[in-house]
Amino acid sequence: MGNVIVAQSGGPTVAINASLVGVMRGVYASDKYEKIYGALHGISGVMKEDLIDLTDRVDDTDLILSTPASYLGSCRYKMPDAAEDTSVYEDIFRIFEKYDISAVFYIGGNDSMDTIDKLARYGSLVGSSICFAGVPKTIDNDLVGTDHTPGFGSAAKYIAATMLEIGHDTAVYQSPCVTIVEIMGRNAGWLTASAALARNDYNPTPQLIYLPEVTFDIDVFLKDLRTVLESTNNVVVAVSEGLRDTEGQYLTAKTATNDRFGHAQLSGVGKYLEGLVKRELGIKCRSVELNILQRCAAHIASEEDLAESEKLGEMAVRFTEQGNTGFMSAVHRISDQPYTYEVVMSELSQIANQEQTVPRQWINEAGNDVTEEMIRYISPLIQGEVIVGYNNGLPIYADIGHLTNVR
Amino acid sequence: MGNVIVAQSGGPTVAINASLVGVMRGVYASDKYEKIYGALHGISGVMKEDLIDLTDRVDDTDLILSTPASYLGSCRYKMPDAAEDTSVYEDIFRIFEKYDISAVFYIGGNDSMDTIDKLARYGSLVGSSICFAGVPKTIDNDLVGTDHTPGFGSAAKYIAATMLEIGHDTAVYQSPCVTIVEIMGRNAGWLTASAALARNDYNPTPQLIYLPEVTFDIDVFLKDLRTVLESTNNVVVAVSEGLRDTEGQYLTAKTATNDRFGHAQLSGVGKYLEGLVKRELGIKCRSVELNILQRCAAHIASEEDLAESEKLGEMAVRFTEQGNTGFMSAVHRISDQPYTYEVVMSELSQIANQEQTVPRQWINEAGNDVTEEMIRYISPLIQGEVIVGYNNGLPIYADIGHLTNVR
Repeated sequence: MGNVIVAQSGGPTVAINASLVGVMRGVYASDKYEKIYGALHGISGVMKEDLIDLTDRVDDTDLILSTPASYLGSCRYKMPDAAEDTSVYEDIFRIFEKYDISAVFYIGGNDSMDTIDKLARYGSLVGSSICFAGVPKTIDNDLVGTDHTPGFGSAAKYIAATMLEIGHDTAVYQSPCVTIVEIMGRNAGWLTASAALARNDYNPTPQLIYLPEVTFDIDVFLKDLRTVLESTNNVVVAVSEGLRDTEGQYLTAKTATNDRFGHAQLSGVGKYLEGLVKRELGIKCRSVELNILQRCAAHIASEEDLAESEKLGEMAVRFTEQGNTGFMSAVHRISDQPYTYEVVMSELSQIANQEQTVPRQWINEAGNDVTEEMIRYISPLIQGEVIVGYNNGLPIYADIGHLTNVR
Repeated sequence: MGNVIVAQSGGPTVAINASLVGVMRGVYASDKYEKIYGALHGISGVMKEDLIDLTDRVDDTDLILSTPASYLGSCRYKMPDAAEDTSVYEDIFRIFEKYDISAVFYIGGNDSMDTIDKLARYGSLVGSSICFAGVPKTIDNDLVGTDHTPGFGSAAKYIAATMLEIGHDTAVYQSPCVTIVEIMGRNAGWLTASAALARNDYNPTPQLIYLPEVTFDIDVFLKDLRTVLESTNNVVVAVSEGLRDTEGQYLTAKTATNDRFGHAQLSGVGKYLEGLVKRELGIKCRSVELNILQRCAAHIASEEDLAESEKLGEMAVRFTEQGNTGFMSAVHRISDQPYTYEVVMSELSQIANQEQTVPRQWINEAGNDVTEEMIRYISPLIQGEVIVGYNNGLPIYADIGHLTNVR
């Protein structure tokens, strides 16, 4: 019997705690693992021995499962290359030894898979018997090696529901009005594509959808808008934050700064296009940025998403019990209708630092909408509603006081 | 037996259709009224005879009740002064006569109460027997003559729930970060104040709340922020869109334009403060604008709000049955705990074109938070959850195809 460590990293989602609970329940059911430690704030919590004991928390799992953001906190620490600097690895593995760790589970996105991949490689290098597993998480749905990522379904459900409500809101006036909705997704248009699910028998909005996978041509955009305005006064446009112009520059490049991982930090494409439409078409235009609400609105989480997220955590434990290491638990879709899938292992070395973007054939030829395939792909992931408890008019979530009280 | 007309005007809310259903059900239960016509797009729908028959729609009322935005559409038409131009009034009253109208119900905010007040006055002037009633609606809660307005409770619930979720989202990182959340409310801080309800045993955010009723001093703001940052790295600030500086200028005055009613159209105080914090404090800062989501997120409506909104519509019918005219149905609060109220009539002439702002004593002395009285005032209004049906992963709302297909 050994112990395990679980940690979370990267941007929060609505489903990352469901994966945490999956790992916890996997360990509770295991004959091989005894204690489970939660490292606060990702790998940096391991380094600082900021660990909380999650072994006897069975009664808390239901509440943690439906709580938004990272129950264990997050970090943006980037592991050095082991070839250049082994001291960090030596320190971390000393701590693993101290706590008698047999398996490490790291829940996160691209950068987190890089971290757990590096730990797994170093482990192999030094002949460690510890198993290292990644559990995917990102609303952006941009991880390779899995059909989709936990957190995406709930974000897509929030976006589609919000777009439907915006469709109602914008339908009330008769005068021409364009509403630009800016949606997250740096280089991958999955989230923006999910806006298409808001359309129904009576709601034609959003009429236009622009993903970052297609070059954004301002002149074509204005022409698209004029065409839609010929038949309706209420136009809603879904745009990705990461739209790039014909010169390959982000539409908001002038104000972009870079984060530690070299990603461009974007915001403002909505505001930019709002100004453009007002200037060029001379009609009322407003922009709405869905912002972090996309990733934290747990009160409208997808039941399917949370169930899968938990399953991926639980199966990661099962796989390590069988001696597997250096993998990420992943979804392999078997069919769309009925929606069925199995949980498989993807090799971490094939996943880290790569991006799964939208295939061009799932975007229409004009580059201003998505295809039916895309809708069939996303639709199963937003199904079902999570019953969140309410107290005094507000959702009940798990107490995260430990995050603000770290040593 | 006569007929009635009902219409909606002003910005959409989550509760305005509950008031519509209140009027419909009031008419269905009435011995005095026979048919009920819905005028599409407010008073302009009356002028154009864009009327839909709502008489036999009993089965649709449940669905309409919980649908966001205006089921009948809205308008921004401002009635001329009858003293200057009677032709518009003559036309409208001719239509009332044609459809044998005995009562007119107008659901809306300040500007709508101005419209129905003018119709009532003209009616008195020409000796008409038609009764004119206003039914209040506005997320801003800035109408006088009523304890609060329908739509406010649901918007407050959305804001408080979202702020709680933002509290979870922002707690995950350890590095200093300020999140500015911009909330609607041009001159009245009620909505921004409701952010305070997000605080609980473990969530201290938002630590700072700035309402438009208090002059916003940038130096004091930066000092407030520095003080909070001494004890925590995660600061969330709720700000009203209508903050004004020590010279009485909106913080975003440079980009403000005016709408037809002479209101300043604002946006961007969040972005403005984000830039300020980055520059002056040199730490990570982001801004989130809740935007129109505050007024259309029907999937998290307040049960209390919708019940009251319906009641106000229903009672307006009851009051006109008794021969009353020139009034707005209103809430008179009897007690906070337990929360009890009665529906009363407020004189329209005392309401139109006035604004109910937050009393200074409900804001703390430092001007950066609200008092316990404010929380006791808002809390009853966000209680209870509305059961919204879901189909294919998305909320089921009423078909508003008639709005896009008007003549």
